[in-house]
Amino acid sequence: MNWYQKELRLPTAERGFHLITDSVLRAIPELQTIKIGMLQVFIKHTSASLTINENADSSVRVDFESHMNKMVPENVPYYIHTYEGPDDMPAHIKASLMGTSVQIPITNGKLNLGIWQGIYLCEHRNHASGRNLTITAFGV
Amino acid sequence: MNWYQKELRLPTAERGFHLITDSVLRAIPELQTIKIGMLQVFIKHTSASLTINENADSSVRVDFESHMNKMVPENVPYYIHTYEGPDDMPAHIKASLMGTSVQIPITNGKLNLGIWQGIYLCEHRNHASGRNLTITAFGV
Amino acid sequence: MNWYQKELRLPTAERGFHLITDSVLRAIPELQTIKIGMLQVFIKHTSASLTINENADSSVRVDFESHMNKMVPENVPYYIHTYEGPDDMPAHIKASLMGTSVQIPITNGKLNLGIWQGIYLCEHRNHASGRNLTITAFGV
Repeated sequence: MNWYQKELRLPTAERGFHLITDSVLRAIPELQTIKIGMLQVFIKHTSASLTINENADSSVRVDFESHMNKMVPENVPYYIHTYEGPDDMPAHIKASLMGTSVQIPITNGKLNLGIWQGIYLCEHRNHASGRNLTITAFGV
Repeated sequence: MNWYQKELRLPTAERGFHLITDSVLRAIPELQTIKIGMLQVFIKHTSASLTINENADSSVRVDFESHMNKMVPENVPYYIHTYEGPDDMPAHIKASLMGTSVQIPITNGKLNLGIWQGIYLCEHRNHASGRNLTITAFGV
Repeated sequence: MNWYQKELRLPTAERGFHLITDSVLRAIPELQTIKIGMLQVFIKHTSASLTINENADSSVRVDFESHMNKMVPENVPYYIHTYEGPDDMPAHIKASLMGTSVQIPITNGKLNLGIWQGIYLCEHRNHASGRNLTITAFGV
């Protein structure tokens, strides 16, 4: 049983949805030594999040941003947590809807993802300055 | 420490929410040998998802489908990813809202679920043709 | 490799979002012996949920409740699962949107959370009477 854990600082990303599968894999090459196991990617923030979705057509990521903005709008009259800007409270809610971590099975030294699946960084703030991830891989 | 990993092909399910707890358990009987551990069920697709919810009254699953269609509608003017049909982009968004995996504690050879909890396959497409799961159980 | 698993009964909480990080940590002091590992908190119910979000300003938790009630309203005409009260079916949907478990990396005997992150109990019912968690920590 082996455990590997890395901290990864992602550079500033603009508000929206971004593919980060390759960055994650580069940060934890030890994953290739695991025959059966699990990878967790955890984001250490409350206004950005992680999810798994389509890794091909970038229009999917554009539509994610459009719809999440519709479903969790800014400047609604019932928000009371407003002093960090209009994008702040929606960012917190979007982060919990998408999720703070992804867990992906490892099989024969590789992420056992479907062919269309990739890991998204979901940046919900207008002006964040990079994001910190903790990446943990474990298995046999 | 033991690790077990299985691939399970679920047959075609109609659009909606479906209980799959029994299918998952049948696919990984080794779970019964684990005293303390974890089960992960991972779906290898981006337009179907997994969640845990009520295992009894099927009307709950009907209302899930109704409300998710309201919350993530088809044919909204701001979608640009439309060439795979009107149900495609909503399916991607619903999949990330529900989630790509569930993690359930194992205790004394059984899933440690609440009495009303079951695993749902959430099929968000009109015409999918079966779905692939990776099921991983590990523990002592 | 060590595994620890505890059952925790949370006392009755009013409908809304509540910080429970301290209660979770008190229930599993063995976490402090783990250098690299994972904590899972799992809620054994289908009308309450768990998420990770801001641990400081309580106005964030108030706005979560306001917006989730808007996004998943009560008394909509298409619900058919209504015999347990108007708050029941929305509670099921909110529970799946937020999620049934959180997984948090452990590093050097502590939860490796960002400084603003805490664990929320999301109580979606008007009159629940306490909630049961299964807490599992494992690692080396």
